[in-house]
Amino acid sequence: MSDKCIKEDIKVEQIDGSVTAAKGFSAAGVAAGIKYTGRKDMAMIFTKEPAVAAGKFTSNVVKAAPVKFDMDIVANSPCVHAVVVNSGIANAATGQPGMDICKKSAKAAAEALSIPEDSVLVGSTGVIGEQLPEDRITAGIKALAQSLSDTRAAAADAERAIMTTDTVPKEVAVQVLIGGKTVTIGGMSKGSGMIHPNMCTMLAYICTDCNITKEMLQKAADIDIPDTFNMITVDGDTSTNDTYLLLANGLAENPVIDSEGDDFDTFLAALHHVDEYLARNMAKDGEGATALFEVAVTAADTKENAKKLARSVASSSLCKAAIYGHDSNFGRFLCALGYSGADFDPEKVDISYSSAKGEIKVLENGLKCAYSEDEATAILSEDEIRVNICMNEGTSEAVAWGCDLSYDYVKINADYRS
Amino acid sequence: MSDKCIKEDIKVEQIDGSVTAAKGFSAAGVAAGIKYTGRKDMAMIFTKEPAVAAGKFTSNVVKAAPVKFDMDIVANSPCVHAVVVNSGIANAATGQPGMDICKKSAKAAAEALSIPEDSVLVGSTGVIGEQLPEDRITAGIKALAQSLSDTRAAAADAERAIMTTDTVPKEVAVQVLIGGKTVTIGGMSKGSGMIHPNMCTMLAYICTDCNITKEMLQKAADIDIPDTFNMITVDGDTSTNDTYLLLANGLAENPVIDSEGDDFDTFLAALHHVDEYLARNMAKDGEGATALFEVAVTAADTKENAKKLARSVASSSLCKAAIYGHDSNFGRFLCALGYSGADFDPEKVDISYSSAKGEIKVLENGLKCAYSEDEATAILSEDEIRVNICMNEGTSEAVAWGCDLSYDYVKINADYRS
Repeated sequence: MSDKCIKEDIKVEQIDGSVTAAKGFSAAGVAAGIKYTGRKDMAMIFTKEPAVAAGKFTSNVVKAAPVKFDMDIVANSPCVHAVVVNSGIANAATGQPGMDICKKSAKAAAEALSIPEDSVLVGSTGVIGEQLPEDRITAGIKALAQSLSDTRAAAADAERAIMTTDTVPKEVAVQVLIGGKTVTIGGMSKGSGMIHPNMCTMLAYICTDCNITKEMLQKAADIDIPDTFNMITVDGDTSTNDTYLLLANGLAENPVIDSEGDDFDTFLAALHHVDEYLARNMAKDGEGATALFEVAVTAADTKENAKKLARSVASSSLCKAAIYGHDSNFGRFLCALGYSGADFDPEKVDISYSSAKGEIKVLENGLKCAYSEDEATAILSEDEIRVNICMNEGTSEAVAWGCDLSYDYVKINADYRS
Repeated sequence: MSDKCIKEDIKVEQIDGSVTAAKGFSAAGVAAGIKYTGRKDMAMIFTKEPAVAAGKFTSNVVKAAPVKFDMDIVANSPCVHAVVVNSGIANAATGQPGMDICKKSAKAAAEALSIPEDSVLVGSTGVIGEQLPEDRITAGIKALAQSLSDTRAAAADAERAIMTTDTVPKEVAVQVLIGGKTVTIGGMSKGSGMIHPNMCTMLAYICTDCNITKEMLQKAADIDIPDTFNMITVDGDTSTNDTYLLLANGLAENPVIDSEGDDFDTFLAALHHVDEYLARNMAKDGEGATALFEVAVTAADTKENAKKLARSVASSSLCKAAIYGHDSNFGRFLCALGYSGADFDPEKVDISYSSAKGEIKVLENGLKCAYSEDEATAILSEDEIRVNICMNEGTSEAVAWGCDLSYDYVKINADYRS
């Protein structure tokens, strides 16, 4: 992992848009009847101009067929043109038939779009252990190819088609100037449960018209994912299907980015904005969530420990339940720091809560402060809560994003398959 | 950790009893008004005959004052006579005042019982960050000393006094023959939430009249805890207060156990019965639990991996929610194996469920079996569910115990402090 920092003084402009924001990208979403009825469940992203691709994939030993398929394409294909994604069935634990359907999907998309077979990426999310229905998948691909459009509406269709238990679609787009040219990055993602990435999370597709080499594109993903998608958690369960794909087709016509330097830094800052925005919104839309639970650790001895500490608190069922109950149970935050695996002096720790209602300090040097419970409850009753933890050990910091643990998380997951 | 196995052919007889079952031990429980009203919240265990003590304590970096206090006593005192425990307040994150109250408690008990100050152990469980009320603690100790009795009723009082969110007390007693003498081991424990031990779990007090050296007593605890208390999980949160204490006063008059051999093996088998029984019952009484969720991994390549795999499944919020929903979502079990940290071939894995209603195979060589969903649901609707996972990689095995994740877990923990 690189120690490269995201430069904060680079101007990144957020614009209205999604995967079709960058030049040359179109998208579509259709109802293919994979598992759901009466809703869109297949999506396609397409660029006629060939794009270089970078990817990050689940660290789970049990990798879904589309993950294995995409890892091969990203590693070995010089360029890609299309991504085909379905929701409803994960195509995980499906053996050789599962791999075969990935290949058949790529072939069907290649025919429908007149592109090489090895320029097609695939993705799936949903129930594990079921086989995809081949006829519906291939019919869906034909319908998608015919519906492609670079409009906002087409992107919105694609966003909805990849959702499972998500309650809202996630999209973002930004623009930066690189070498006098406007470079656009647009992305969409889905993810609501089984979220605790060790590589990236669930499905995220980022499209840019930046002119950048495949090597530098992958480098940008490698630098940014550890601080964004890898810092969110909903339930501690790392999925078999986590996939992050980043496509760059060069149509912005900026001077090619083929090494580190100012242009790369600018691209990285823009990508970071996109990744963090999507990651944060996935955490906020965690299954059953009523609040975003942001954990900011400062003054830790090392970056690695700062991350361990932040993730441990954001992942704790007891901390998450306390947030749901608007309960200032700071002992649980301290406890979760203690079993994070990072060593520290408990008698140096300060904790405060902040939200739109203000900030309140509850722990100083490991001891309870004199504070108003009513005031703390008011601050913890907002829908975006930040727990600030100062270790007073060094200068490293990290932020993790999670959500509260509600009755609805249990409800959603006690009977997800039905 | 020792590789020593518990011998399964040694006859261990379970008898009705608790911490007062072994010769010379008495107990008491009183209502001291620590935090609760109208219920017992302080307990004492006493042996007039000096006992050697062994202990295992939380691995959390944030250790409660009584944990630090007991670690010192177990390491340095030649013998102990008494244990004083309160529920309601954990005496964690309490700094020097927290350590002072431990010392004052030991002093008060020493005076009331006419024993040395350094022969008193203490324990606390409850809310973190609050100071114990000194006057009530010392008054409670006096009342406890006057109530001591070796009856079943006195043990039951002690068991209830150490409970927090537990719904039932946990107790067990066994007898074995060692050197022609009947040796008795009796124990009680509490624990319902914040359970995911890395050393031992919550509060467990085991009393035996076995004649055994301090060194061999500690060795027995070191061998057995990794397979019992360390294999249970309720919510993945390792407490600041986990304490396992094992006291042996020698009154059974068996030839002293001062080395490994047949007598040690017999003692170990009896201790294992006690530890496993208490651990399993703590998992079953996990906060909000409607079912015991037992995960048995067989044919793993190493013991360490077998444990990782079993614990990963038993800890998974998604697997736990599936058990609550009686839902045969085997994909989640496979997924949780995949992110356990153990490497394996997903296409070799077999999974079956079993309960009082029978057994059903759902996954073979990583692929879904043809099975009846109705039959699976019936098996998963019992209150003790076992998920059997065969890795087909080697000969190592492990069992982990957890519970399902219910609405009530969230309810209990959203507002525990109030």
